[in-house]
Amino acid sequence: MRDIQDFFTIDPVAPGMFETPCPVIDLDVAERNLRRWQARCDALGLANRPHIKTHKLAGLARFQIALGARGITVQKLGEAEVMADAGIPDMLISFNIVGAPKLARLAALARRTAISAVADSPAVVAGLGAAGRAAGRAISVLVECDTGAARNGVATPAAAADLARLIEATEGVRYGGLMTYPAVGMRRQAAEFLAQARDLVAAAGLASETISTGGSPEMWRDEGLGVATEYRAGTYAYFDRSLIAAGACTVQDCALVLRATVVSVPTPERAILDAGSKALTSDLLGLPDHGAVPALGDARVYQINEEHGYLDISGLAEKPAVGDIVDILPNHVCPVSNLFDKVALMRGGRLLGLTPVDARGLVW
Amino acid sequence: MRDIQDFFTIDPVAPGMFETPCPVIDLDVAERNLRRWQARCDALGLANRPHIKTHKLAGLARFQIALGARGITVQKLGEAEVMADAGIPDMLISFNIVGAPKLARLAALARRTAISAVADSPAVVAGLGAAGRAAGRAISVLVECDTGAARNGVATPAAAADLARLIEATEGVRYGGLMTYPAVGMRRQAAEFLAQARDLVAAAGLASETISTGGSPEMWRDEGLGVATEYRAGTYAYFDRSLIAAGACTVQDCALVLRATVVSVPTPERAILDAGSKALTSDLLGLPDHGAVPALGDARVYQINEEHGYLDISGLAEKPAVGDIVDILPNHVCPVSNLFDKVALMRGGRLLGLTPVDARGLVW
Repeated sequence: MRDIQDFFTIDPVAPGMFETPCPVIDLDVAERNLRRWQARCDALGLANRPHIKTHKLAGLARFQIALGARGITVQKLGEAEVMADAGIPDMLISFNIVGAPKLARLAALARRTAISAVADSPAVVAGLGAAGRAAGRAISVLVECDTGAARNGVATPAAAADLARLIEATEGVRYGGLMTYPAVGMRRQAAEFLAQARDLVAAAGLASETISTGGSPEMWRDEGLGVATEYRAGTYAYFDRSLIAAGACTVQDCALVLRATVVSVPTPERAILDAGSKALTSDLLGLPDHGAVPALGDARVYQINEEHGYLDISGLAEKPAVGDIVDILPNHVCPVSNLFDKVALMRGGRLLGLTPVDARGLVW
Repeated sequence: MRDIQDFFTIDPVAPGMFETPCPVIDLDVAERNLRRWQARCDALGLANRPHIKTHKLAGLARFQIALGARGITVQKLGEAEVMADAGIPDMLISFNIVGAPKLARLAALARRTAISAVADSPAVVAGLGAAGRAAGRAISVLVECDTGAARNGVATPAAAADLARLIEATEGVRYGGLMTYPAVGMRRQAAEFLAQARDLVAAAGLASETISTGGSPEMWRDEGLGVATEYRAGTYAYFDRSLIAAGACTVQDCALVLRATVVSVPTPERAILDAGSKALTSDLLGLPDHGAVPALGDARVYQINEEHGYLDISGLAEKPAVGDIVDILPNHVCPVSNLFDKVALMRGGRLLGLTPVDARGLVW
């Protein structure tokens, strides 16, 4: 198998010409995360279908497939189009596709790649059926189940079975199985819902080929996995502060940092970084601040504006100076990748250069 | 003067092919906002230097100049480079420029356009001086003053005067005046700081050609404006929910909405929109939720995930259906523009098409 760095197109950066703010991804750490998770899926007999919304990198998606992933999960058509262009052969789009322009794009994708979809209402099924008929190829549709997250999804196993029958009766689509995003702490409840729905569907003469669950916060817990055939995790490629807090990883597992520059040290208590909400996002995910700098005694980014990060340096014996470079551990990595046209890659402690975030900014 | 829409390159959208989520900007409303503010600046004898970080549109920047703005404010070199390419002749970059690669870019900009900079420490002045010498042209530098926001800036008027003298003594830069971003509710205190600094600087034989203040939340208040020669406002081009809350505008002044599609209506209390934190951002700015839909009785986006917006429809007699289009008023417009490669423009109630967000994604 090729080395992980050979999956990427990399533009080298001349010495001293690296600019901040910029996410820096340690490929050694990312590779370790990806291999460890693939090994766990293999051991459990679960198909691994990583969600690429976290990294949005065609190279990393191809590497995940090379390690043994069944396919990938995407959240948007734009992501699916980029990944199809990159040669990813099997995708689940885990978000209701609604409206004529998007259904036309889905039809075009279905003609050239194995793409499955989700639905939680007859209206969504009707659209997907039209797309499948336009593609000349039945699209596999999973029934999205609300197993406790109170987001999308049918509310009961009986409603799941009803929708499964409707899908099977609709030209242009075929029933592919069940899908949920379980709320944290509700994995057992989710498994009960899925098992009941699977049995009701089976009683109607339909097989649930795929039963797909997901989520990085509880990825290492066995609870409720028995019913699942497939797992969708995204953030595990990089991990972040929110997943340290969730107990899913340690700081050594975090593959992405936001590299920033100290632009002002107005007082011995405060340094200002060139990284604010337009680089870190405002996502708190339950944390009390906006990021931490492990190399500076875990100093906290206690406030942000659009382009300013306020670092608490009151506890540091040696204060940073204007021009110093710091690496911030973000609360939530997924939307950080989404803000940058390029990210930097490291391997063996060495900066390799910049690579484009292929599926970034494709809001549609 | 040309019509506002003629300042833009616009790609028409075929009927029925509009896709969500997408920011939609009503040029009628934006034009009214821009004209009203320019008229106020003219009446007060204040130079208008709008901050383009909000819209990042070269067309809107050119329109602001055509209405009478002295120049524009940018926060990043990437924004300045795009706006220089668009023919904007006069820019203030209101953020410390630090590090060799950025200073080289600043020097290149200084060779081709009138760009001024800010500094709040000798280290920043030294870098700017090197850039000016490389450009063969002295860069005008304003001293950033911390008048209460506890962000960047020198802490006292005496420190401002010291830095002004250092700037004037440094080859490659010249002292251009004073700059602050006043904290909300501290405009009078900011004015006292600036007046004292100006007088101390004058006592050292230097003129503060520009005294620059800013901020949209208190833009209509006269308090503390006497000392200023220039005003930097950004959000006023579009306004948003945070500025309605601040009393700076009404909902009729809001020029940007995020157009979204209802993708699921799982219960009579909840509709799910295709707009989450990757479209609205997680910015709260003191508000209790993530956006409102004025056309649906001001229904609230009470929760967001990356691609999901949770709309509270419990109070609506007529519930939305899957496929319905809704316009969300965002809490904070500035980072919304930053997420989209294109925005839609409206004029006279008609959708004109899409225009690129020229300075988007230029994180550096």
